[in-house]
Amino acid sequence: MHIFLSWNNYTHGLMLTSRIGKIFQGCDEIDAAVFINGAEPLLDMGFFYVTGLMEGLFEGGMAIIYPDSSIEVVTSLLEAESAKKGDFEITIFKSKAERKEIFKDKLSKFKKIGINSQGLIHKNYLELKELLPEIEFVDVTEAVNSARMIKDEKEMEILKKACQMVSEVADGIVDFFKEGVKEYEVAAELSYMMQKLGATGPSFDTISSFGKNTAEPHYTAGDVALKQGDFILLDFGAKYRRYCSDITRTYFLGEASEKQKGMYTTVLQAQKVALDMIKPGVNGKDVHQAVADFIEGTKYKGLFTHSTGHSIGLSVHDGVALTKEIDNTLEENMVFTVEPGIYEPGYGGVRIEDNVRVTSDGCEILTTAKKELIEV
Amino acid sequence: MHIFLSWNNYTHGLMLTSRIGKIFQGCDEIDAAVFINGAEPLLDMGFFYVTGLMEGLFEGGMAIIYPDSSIEVVTSLLEAESAKKGDFEITIFKSKAERKEIFKDKLSKFKKIGINSQGLIHKNYLELKELLPEIEFVDVTEAVNSARMIKDEKEMEILKKACQMVSEVADGIVDFFKEGVKEYEVAAELSYMMQKLGATGPSFDTISSFGKNTAEPHYTAGDVALKQGDFILLDFGAKYRRYCSDITRTYFLGEASEKQKGMYTTVLQAQKVALDMIKPGVNGKDVHQAVADFIEGTKYKGLFTHSTGHSIGLSVHDGVALTKEIDNTLEENMVFTVEPGIYEPGYGGVRIEDNVRVTSDGCEILTTAKKELIEV
Repeated sequence: MHIFLSWNNYTHGLMLTSRIGKIFQGCDEIDAAVFINGAEPLLDMGFFYVTGLMEGLFEGGMAIIYPDSSIEVVTSLLEAESAKKGDFEITIFKSKAERKEIFKDKLSKFKKIGINSQGLIHKNYLELKELLPEIEFVDVTEAVNSARMIKDEKEMEILKKACQMVSEVADGIVDFFKEGVKEYEVAAELSYMMQKLGATGPSFDTISSFGKNTAEPHYTAGDVALKQGDFILLDFGAKYRRYCSDITRTYFLGEASEKQKGMYTTVLQAQKVALDMIKPGVNGKDVHQAVADFIEGTKYKGLFTHSTGHSIGLSVHDGVALTKEIDNTLEENMVFTVEPGIYEPGYGGVRIEDNVRVTSDGCEILTTAKKELIEV
Repeated sequence: MHIFLSWNNYTHGLMLTSRIGKIFQGCDEIDAAVFINGAEPLLDMGFFYVTGLMEGLFEGGMAIIYPDSSIEVVTSLLEAESAKKGDFEITIFKSKAERKEIFKDKLSKFKKIGINSQGLIHKNYLELKELLPEIEFVDVTEAVNSARMIKDEKEMEILKKACQMVSEVADGIVDFFKEGVKEYEVAAELSYMMQKLGATGPSFDTISSFGKNTAEPHYTAGDVALKQGDFILLDFGAKYRRYCSDITRTYFLGEASEKQKGMYTTVLQAQKVALDMIKPGVNGKDVHQAVADFIEGTKYKGLFTHSTGHSIGLSVHDGVALTKEIDNTLEENMVFTVEPGIYEPGYGGVRIEDNVRVTSDGCEILTTAKKELIEV
């Protein structure tokens, strides 16, 4: 099976109007807001949020949104074909000088322009400032993030597909576990399986770690061979039409030891603490605190070293995290990862991660792969 | 076969000293320079250049370099294990507040601090400015880019492996071409083959296009099935220890038509124009102009719509491009893509791309995949 949404049904108009409207509602009065891409990978996902464009890079390109919820795009000739898939006016530049001229021409009539400082590279800001010294630039990052946090119907449709892909792969990969297989070979297999299901690619560098490497939360994948008794920790995501999913499962080659089982069960329980709490009105900070408190109350005290989760969407880390420092009231159609873990340096680690949508009265788990203890 | 460099032989010390020294030589007098990562994918490859770290994300982390070529790193607890692979002092923060305190503590004694505005997100700049209102921030992007343009021995070793991986895959993928295979299936196969050779993943979203889609230079991969007579354009890269390769080959299913052959031969000749010119002392702009002039003198006038190439390294677009607007004198150990193309909208396109190292008197082609016309 492969998973493709029909391109033809994907109409932009209303959806973009609503996204842009949300941004303007969330910020002080401005004449326009701009989203400018750097060179890959320094692309502003805000650009892709407001344009709805799912192909192309648009390096150096700019999207301008207006208070009437209209939008236009300035792009290099190279991306003209891709830009035409959008439902808006495009202006094409053929040189750097022309790009500057167009930026100036489009923006110099304004007094106050919003910028998305979280997605904008400082160099592009300096360029704007030089071209338009009289204009006041206002940071609208928060308004953009708030809008992006709550996914619309089209975004949910795409995200669900991305989650469906990784779920199928997380279940299927177990057939590939055998003594001697290397971490990077499992990583290769994961990407292959995701792309065969229609993913553009992985949404981040796959973590495929065995044995004691599983204790390093951001390890990627090395040359280590799988052996009996090993933890197998796989953390991977599918990118589909620019949207990201992100799942982690921990498996065991052979029978898990009592110690391993204890760690696994504790992490699963910790995840349940979060899943039981998530619903509109709850503070994300409290979800994290409950999970952290739960783990602190076990013999794995001190071994949970990261946040409980993060918003996910066009970026893998798409806005705020579920962590002790961030006040964030959950709302319907926010999508988060829920990923507690326990890491014992030199021994191994367990992490279990799902992507969940906040529903009207709880949460929906979008990543449906098995998570009872899996011994292969 | 898979390709791994031995981690143990990979010593940091001297190499980092030399990289940092080059940066300070290239900029005005400053007390220190900082490299701060945003959230993935908005990571500053400058951070990874000066630290030599090849694992981990270091989101929100900072590298500080000093005029005596020393370096230290500030990182979250999450990345502490990965940071320990470096050969420098690390300071760990456990919260956002602690991070700010450490930033302030490390930097407030200075008057002038360099920032890499091309890799720094504006939000992180605003944070620095707020924490350290008295300090003058100086853009050192050019010095960083100049240093990064010329690859050292260790970088070349890694880059060559990344190029070797894509070359093998570009030759091997032809076995997979058959009527009915979909663009995304070929993309999946490419990633799989690269990762089986040891790549962390693709260095950018693979372009796998058939038939008239090949006329869109930044198309990614869709649901289109391969049919007899189609152009097959594959543009992909391997990421290996953070370094990127980038190759394009164009193939034909069945016998190429006279028109297709004409396009292919012209692009191959255009590429040779560049390869014959590249050597130290030549201006990259002139290389592009020669290629553009060559194509303009054929019946494909007007159909070459992008630059001839770009520097490649830690980023796919790692510094300057070979294009008409950029003055850049080639030097030994710069590495560029050379990738002319011809695109006839609605019909199809041909691009041939290699990665080349500037040698003392010419260039060395690092991507050795076949490029005579391939009819499968």
